[in-house]
Amino acid sequence: MSRQLDFYFDYVSHNAYLAWTQLPRLARRHGIPLSLHPVVFGAMLKANGQLGPAEIPPKSLWMLRDVLRKAARLDIPIAPPAAHPFNSLLALRATCSPLAEARRDALVGALFDAVWVESRDVSDPAVVADVASRVGLSGDALVADANREDTKRRLRAGTDAAIAAGVFGVPSMCVGDALFWGFDDLEALEACLEGRDPVADMDLTGWLAVRPSVQRRR
Amino acid sequence: MSRQLDFYFDYVSHNAYLAWTQLPRLARRHGIPLSLHPVVFGAMLKANGQLGPAEIPPKSLWMLRDVLRKAARLDIPIAPPAAHPFNSLLALRATCSPLAEARRDALVGALFDAVWVESRDVSDPAVVADVASRVGLSGDALVADANREDTKRRLRAGTDAAIAAGVFGVPSMCVGDALFWGFDDLEALEACLEGRDPVADMDLTGWLAVRPSVQRRR
Repeated sequence: MSRQLDFYFDYVSHNAYLAWTQLPRLARRHGIPLSLHPVVFGAMLKANGQLGPAEIPPKSLWMLRDVLRKAARLDIPIAPPAAHPFNSLLALRATCSPLAEARRDALVGALFDAVWVESRDVSDPAVVADVASRVGLSGDALVADANREDTKRRLRAGTDAAIAAGVFGVPSMCVGDALFWGFDDLEALEACLEGRDPVADMDLTGWLAVRPSVQRRR
Repeated sequence: MSRQLDFYFDYVSHNAYLAWTQLPRLARRHGIPLSLHPVVFGAMLKANGQLGPAEIPPKSLWMLRDVLRKAARLDIPIAPPAAHPFNSLLALRATCSPLAEARRDALVGALFDAVWVESRDVSDPAVVADVASRVGLSGDALVADANREDTKRRLRAGTDAAIAAGVFGVPSMCVGDALFWGFDDLEALEACLEGRDPVADMDLTGWLAVRPSVQRRR
């Protein structure tokens, strides 16, 4: 059975950054290839008529403290971003450019660091070009590639496929049919990779048959 | 300094049930009084223009598995509710009736069990009356109390006060100004109670000054 660990992310997400700091090592530990899927978080929110945490002021305050707690516990470097939310399309499209796998991995790491450690504005093409050059890519060529119609289409198609597969937020991690959401789910993901997922063999028929008896007026 | 652990809950929330199974022991362990705050989750969602997890089909599927994983790990009994979402107003109002503290605690536990262990429909007055009688209360008197205007007002005022204090979801746990949200936050709550909250002394000025550079079209 050929398995892979699918990682769905958008640079705009604090928790996607935190997950990224752990996932390559976690995947190596379990001998499973990590497959990177840049997606547009805003499009996911829109598909579900949902708000992001940054769009709900009290939740945004909670999330900030939550993220800083987790970063402190794991000794992960983190600094205030240049702006938030910001437009991450250029960085996501650059990630969708045709690149060798190792180069793409390095670019993803460098872009996450640019946002969440170096407080740089990755909506600026000059910043993306500079970040790219630091990982051995031609910055100008990458920005040009990012702005090509087929690259834009690739990001849109990847986002649509993720939504169709039931991914509703970032970070999400999938192993086959099992979907894990958020940094807090890494422990459950590891249990799954070790064959210890308690819901894997559970009969959910009774649960899936539950129906609403009330609907909220909106 | 007189501290207390405020617990904001609605019976409709899976994760509030899970948190309830842990909080009384957690509070005793730390010698802090547990203060119960029944609130209307739907009103919180409405205040923030937000959807609940049960209103987003793929998130609802994720949450089911997430809750069952946590219940299995902690060996917490859980069974499919009679319906979900359901109207929890009567159960919440019953909880807001004038009751001695120990009686209220017992009623809260019995109502959570009725929903999440015994698959009973607590929107039915006969069920609420029966649950109440099991913890030594007069069921009919409690249902009558629950339906009094001043009881309804108490629930509304409690919900409004929670929203004004920045509570945006259930379960939420507060210790002074520190707000913890969701079952997954119990570990951070314990760290806080032990004086080990890494954000307690952190200077958040830089983070709080971050502004958006983009706004999503809705």
